[in-house]
This record gives sequence, structure tokens and C-alpha cells, in this order.
Amino acid sequence: MSEKKPLILVTNDDGITAPGIRHLISIMKEIGEVIVVAPDRPQSGMGHAITVNDNLYCDEVHLDDQVREYSCSGTPADCVKIATQEIMKRKPDICVSGINHGSNSSINVIYSGTMSAAVEAGTSDIPAVGFSLLDYSMNADFSHTTEFIKYIVNMVLDNGLPRATVLNVNFPAVEKEKIKGLRLCRQAKANWVENFDKRQTPHGRDYYWLTGEFVNQDGGKDTDEWALENNYISVVPVQFDLTAYHALKEFKNWNFEH
Amino acid sequence: MSEKKPLILVTNDDGITAPGIRHLISIMKEIGEVIVVAPDRPQSGMGHAITVNDNLYCDEVHLDDQVREYSCSGTPADCVKIATQEIMKRKPDICVSGINHGSNSSINVIYSGTMSAAVEAGTSDIPAVGFSLLDYSMNADFSHTTEFIKYIVNMVLDNGLPRATVLNVNFPAVEKEKIKGLRLCRQAKANWVENFDKRQTPHGRDYYWLTGEFVNQDGGKDTDEWALENNYISVVPVQFDLTAYHALKEFKNWNFEH
Repeated sequence: MSEKKPLILVTNDDGITAPGIRHLISIMKEIGEVIVVAPDRPQSGMGHAITVNDNLYCDEVHLDDQVREYSCSGTPADCVKIATQEIMKRKPDICVSGINHGSNSSINVIYSGTMSAAVEAGTSDIPAVGFSLLDYSMNADFSHTTEFIKYIVNMVLDNGLPRATVLNVNFPAVEKEKIKGLRLCRQAKANWVENFDKRQTPHGRDYYWLTGEFVNQDGGKDTDEWALENNYISVVPVQFDLTAYHALKEFKNWNFEH
Repeated sequence: MSEKKPLILVTNDDGITAPGIRHLISIMKEIGEVIVVAPDRPQSGMGHAITVNDNLYCDEVHLDDQVREYSCSGTPADCVKIATQEIMKRKPDICVSGINHGSNSSINVIYSGTMSAAVEAGTSDIPAVGFSLLDYSMNADFSHTTEFIKYIVNMVLDNGLPRATVLNVNFPAVEKEKIKGLRLCRQAKANWVENFDKRQTPHGRDYYWLTGEFVNQDGGKDTDEWALENNYISVVPVQFDLTAYHALKEFKNWNFEH
């Protein structure tokens, strides 16, 4: 491979054999040298979990002749850590995560393993993008994402990203012809209202399944939810400095520093 | 119990029997009616993980005559969801999480199960505070935290918190006499540089332990790291709207919306 090719780290949270990451790998092979370090099994909803009390396996696997790939027993964030510190000889030019089977728009970003991998890369100053499709099915059709993913990745490779920022890109699950294009957005104010499904084991012990209803409280047309409902691809710049600066000012009136 | 007493939800990520949460419960009993829903085992580093592909147990346990307590098989975020949706008859007046055995300052906030519980409560408009002590030991001395935790919790009960904001409070591990007081801070710019400890199983398979060095890149005196190094208790308001608004402006110059 040419030394001029960008070095691309690919990961996800649905596991290394999920159709979403295989599609992302197929696109990245056209752009650069690809190394895959991804979970050995689905890790949906893992948020920014890391493995501190258990050891990690990270085994080379052969799924594609043109790509070096590793299957890791850890979380998406673990995968990025072990990729960049143990497996890759130099810092990748970009880290891409996904394509997630399911939405990571609005408040879902805080639960998202896909986005935690991108954020983890971001904390080490690696430009990073998480891609998600609003279709949970393992048979989801990713074909309409190709052109836009290429466009975004090439743009990030050319321009970098603002410091301490990664991108959260979500695709509506509609036919290619209906897609209106990319749209820069803010994270919609939304939350989940849980509804636990209570059952009993055959032995009489109560247990629960987490289910929930997504509630979008935000009518703004500058949000990711609005964009997706209107067949745009939402692009939200995400930060990992969680300081609520506006609140810092409010608290100055409190007697906190007593 | 008097109906005027505030209703307090207590959780953590070190597990329901950890000394840190027992200390927090003992303080909260003096302030209000306490309900504990906490993980049945340590969940450090769980970030904002939730349990979507497995069921949850949540069993009442009797550890303290004055407190209703539930031991849950899920993550800290799961505990808050099941507490507020299944166990508590009304929305708690405050959710407190911790006291964590170990730091959740600066970038640690994104890996923190303690803080994810607080954030989870925040997404449902419940005022929430995460407390952490900079001592990982199970025998850590929490006595100097009592007075300050009371002060903060009473202040939040009296005033509420700015919308979509929770508090991240970290205590230095020093004697009470050395504590200089509370200090409002921003999250320091810092990251972890990992160092994997590679070993072999007795059967010849490579495995890794995640270890790392914390690197504070931030010399600011308004940061949580500076406060803690100088024997202040750091108080950082944390938000879960992760939109990088400053970056949104920068991107407007890009040809993203092509």
C-alpha cells in the first residue's frame, strides 16, 4: 500500500461481523489503509464503558483479504484504546465507528457505544466520526449511506476537526432518492420514558425488561430529530468537555464557595 | 415519616454494600426519606451503559432498618431508571450517587458510572449530584465529606439546579483540617495515555490488562484538577447536551450542507 494513504481505524458496537461495520469497511478500503478493531459480540447500549476489572482478549481474525482485523472482548472504548496503543504503529488519521444498526440521535448519544468509540478517539486528538442508521434490523439497507460517508470522511481527512470535537452522523432509513442531503444540527432535547416489563422466572423470582418510549420535547428546526424526520442526514458536532458553562455563571450567585 | 421530608434516591457504581454508599446513606437519612437502588456488584468504568439485551433483577434487601433498599443486577443508569419508573411512588426530590471510591474529575466523568446515574436522573428533570473521593481504597476515610455533602444536598433541595445540569463533586483525600472548602470549576482538559500490560494465559493465548497514566494538559486555576490538587472540593456543573456549539459555527464555513 502507498504510504500516502490515510490510516483509518474502524470500530463499532454491534460486533465485528455486523453488516453495518462490513459496509463501513468496504467504503473505507477505497479511501485508505484500514485497520479494524471491533468487539467480538454486540455491545449496544454500552455507553462509555471501559474494562477495568477484567482482562481483554484481542485476536487477529481474517474476514477480508485487504484488511487487518482484530476481534476484541472489550467495549467499543476499549477497542479504540487497544487499537491506538497496542496494535497500530502510528496514530490513525481518522477513526470511524459504525455503521450502527439504530439511531444515536439526540439523547441516545449518551448511551451509544458507537459514539463512545468516536469520543474515545477524540480524547486522544484523533479526528473521529460515528455513523448510525435509523434501522435496528440486522438486514438493514446501508446502500444510500455510501456516497455521504465518503464525502464526510474525505472532508474530515482534508480539514481535520475543531479541537475536542467529534461528529455524530445519523442517516434516515429511507430510499436514496428521498435523502435531501447533510444538515448540521444541534442535539435535540429529548429523553426516554421507561416502561419496565415485569415478569416472573419459572421459579417465581421477579425480573424486568427495560422498554421505553422516546419523547422529543424539542420543536426546533435546527435539531437532529427535525432533520431526520425530514429526510436529512443529521451531523452533530459532539464535545466531551461536559462543563455546563452557562450554569457556572448561574452558580456564581449561590453561596457555594462558602 | 413526615410527608414534608424530601424523597431521596441513592445509588452508586461500587455496589450497594460499598462503604462509600453506606456513608452517603447515613448522611441522607438525616435529611429525608431515603430509597436506595444500587448495583448488586461493582460497576466501575461502566460509563452510561444500560441493559438492553438482558433482563434485570431488582430485589429488596435489608441492610438498614430505616431505609428501603433494592439490589439491582444492572448498571448505575439502569438503577435510576428502574427506581424512578418501578419502585418509587413519586419522582424523587433529589438523586445522589456515590460516594465513589476514586476520582471522577476532568475526563473521568465520561467513564464514570457514578456520574452516569446522576446524568440519567438529570435527563428526567430530577436534580442530581454525584460524589466521589480521590481514594480507590475500600477502606477509604469518608468522614470529612459529611458536612459538605449535607451543605450541597440542602442547597440543591432548596434551590433546584439549572435545567439539564447535574453536579460532579470530587473530594480530595486529605484530612478534614486541610480542606479549604468548595470551589466551582470547569472540567480540566486531560486524558488517559493507556499502557496495556500484555500477558499470556497458561494455554498460550495473549491477553491484556488496561492500565494508564492520567495526563492533565490544563494549567488553568479554574479547573477541577487545580482545585483538588490545592485541597479544595471541586464542584463542576455537568450537562448532557453534548452539542459543541462553538464547532457548529466553525462548520458553517464548510461545505457540509451540499
